[in-house]
Amino acid sequence: MFLFENIYIVLVGITHPGNIGGAARAMRNMGLTQLRLVQPKLFPHAEATARASGACDVLAKTQVYDNFAESIQDCHLVCGTSARSRTINWEILSPRDSVEKVLLTSQKVAIVFGREHAGLTNEELDHCHYLIQIPTVADFSSLNVAAAVQVIAYELRCAQMANETSLIKEPAETLATAESMQRFYEHLRQTLIEIDFLDPTNPRQLIRRLQRLYNRSQLTESEINILRGILTATQKQCKVKL
Amino acid sequence: MFLFENIYIVLVGITHPGNIGGAARAMRNMGLTQLRLVQPKLFPHAEATARASGACDVLAKTQVYDNFAESIQDCHLVCGTSARSRTINWEILSPRDSVEKVLLTSQKVAIVFGREHAGLTNEELDHCHYLIQIPTVADFSSLNVAAAVQVIAYELRCAQMANETSLIKEPAETLATAESMQRFYEHLRQTLIEIDFLDPTNPRQLIRRLQRLYNRSQLTESEINILRGILTATQKQCKVKL
Repeated sequence: MFLFENIYIVLVGITHPGNIGGAARAMRNMGLTQLRLVQPKLFPHAEATARASGACDVLAKTQVYDNFAESIQDCHLVCGTSARSRTINWEILSPRDSVEKVLLTSQKVAIVFGREHAGLTNEELDHCHYLIQIPTVADFSSLNVAAAVQVIAYELRCAQMANETSLIKEPAETLATAESMQRFYEHLRQTLIEIDFLDPTNPRQLIRRLQRLYNRSQLTESEINILRGILTATQKQCKVKL
Repeated sequence: MFLFENIYIVLVGITHPGNIGGAARAMRNMGLTQLRLVQPKLFPHAEATARASGACDVLAKTQVYDNFAESIQDCHLVCGTSARSRTINWEILSPRDSVEKVLLTSQKVAIVFGREHAGLTNEELDHCHYLIQIPTVADFSSLNVAAAVQVIAYELRCAQMANETSLIKEPAETLATAESMQRFYEHLRQTLIEIDFLDPTNPRQLIRRLQRLYNRSQLTESEINILRGILTATQKQCKVKL
């Protein structure tokens, strides 16, 4: 299985330390822990720590670089992110398609995010094997950098989970068997007749609609017990009357 | 085609105004514009405006509510978000599966996000048809609220783009509004007391379980009418007895 330790999130020229903290938290939520910063304006910084909100382990081992080329030197695949369409045609992938490529790589991968206002320079993009473009509306395309990290980290996590074949499921509540459902519907039908809601000479459409409603819910055995308890209590009222 | 104007992002009890701005920006990037706030600590606020970074149109028309029920009153589908696994089993969907459901609904939808540290209360979740759980690592599961909004908004945008070419919807049956659901639950509660099934001094768990069951089914208005018809017929039996 692909190791998330091989994925490096590289943030270039970040001005607001809060964004570094936000990115660290987003990474940590999704199981990523390798953060690299190129020429951050302020780091370490209290605002980064505050926004990391417990992802201090990520910040503690964050590596800081003076130049971009060094920060990606040991990586085999380098993916840039960009909001803008560029004049030069890089191969552009959606986040979903790009994480497939990342997970197919069994070596070190860098996913690079640029400056808050200017993104990555063309020189920096020249180092990238391809570009990841997060889909946005055309007239408001610039994501916050921590939000962009969140989207990519989330896609990585989804892809990783999809690949984990042996996902151990929590034991769910027991769903009602078809047999108990039938018994419940018969009990319901009987009760509706007793309270004069159902005309037994023409019951069809009403019962069918109720069946559809309850089938849709996939009732558990304990819910069936509650519903039949209500029916029994209702029937008792009718008997008192008689 | 499904209109993004029908999707309301509802943020409950947000403490940090920066998160409101971050959420507004995340929404705007993905084409969502309807933001509702329930009891925000500080709004409007300079920090919200700063973090919105140009998504001021979203903030300008944001609606503020005193209580949660009001904020979702006109919505036909209500989806909660939760990081924690709950003891009571709500139906839990991934972001990807949940946006499919949202886009299949041609009526107003609320997607609800809770407080920074405590999330949504069980009482608030009782209003929800299902829960959306963003996949995270187990030991660090709490996303920043703006980051969570970003993930959901991103999934909506992806699904919208995938559907854009061919999504012509059949007119669906009108789903019940949150308001009719509340009226139905009140009618149900009253009837259960009258048939001596519910002890009004300790009603809580029973009603909650029934709410969960019916919320899961996403009742239509006409189904609500059938169910309330049954309740009225049941009440009539009790009155005859008295």
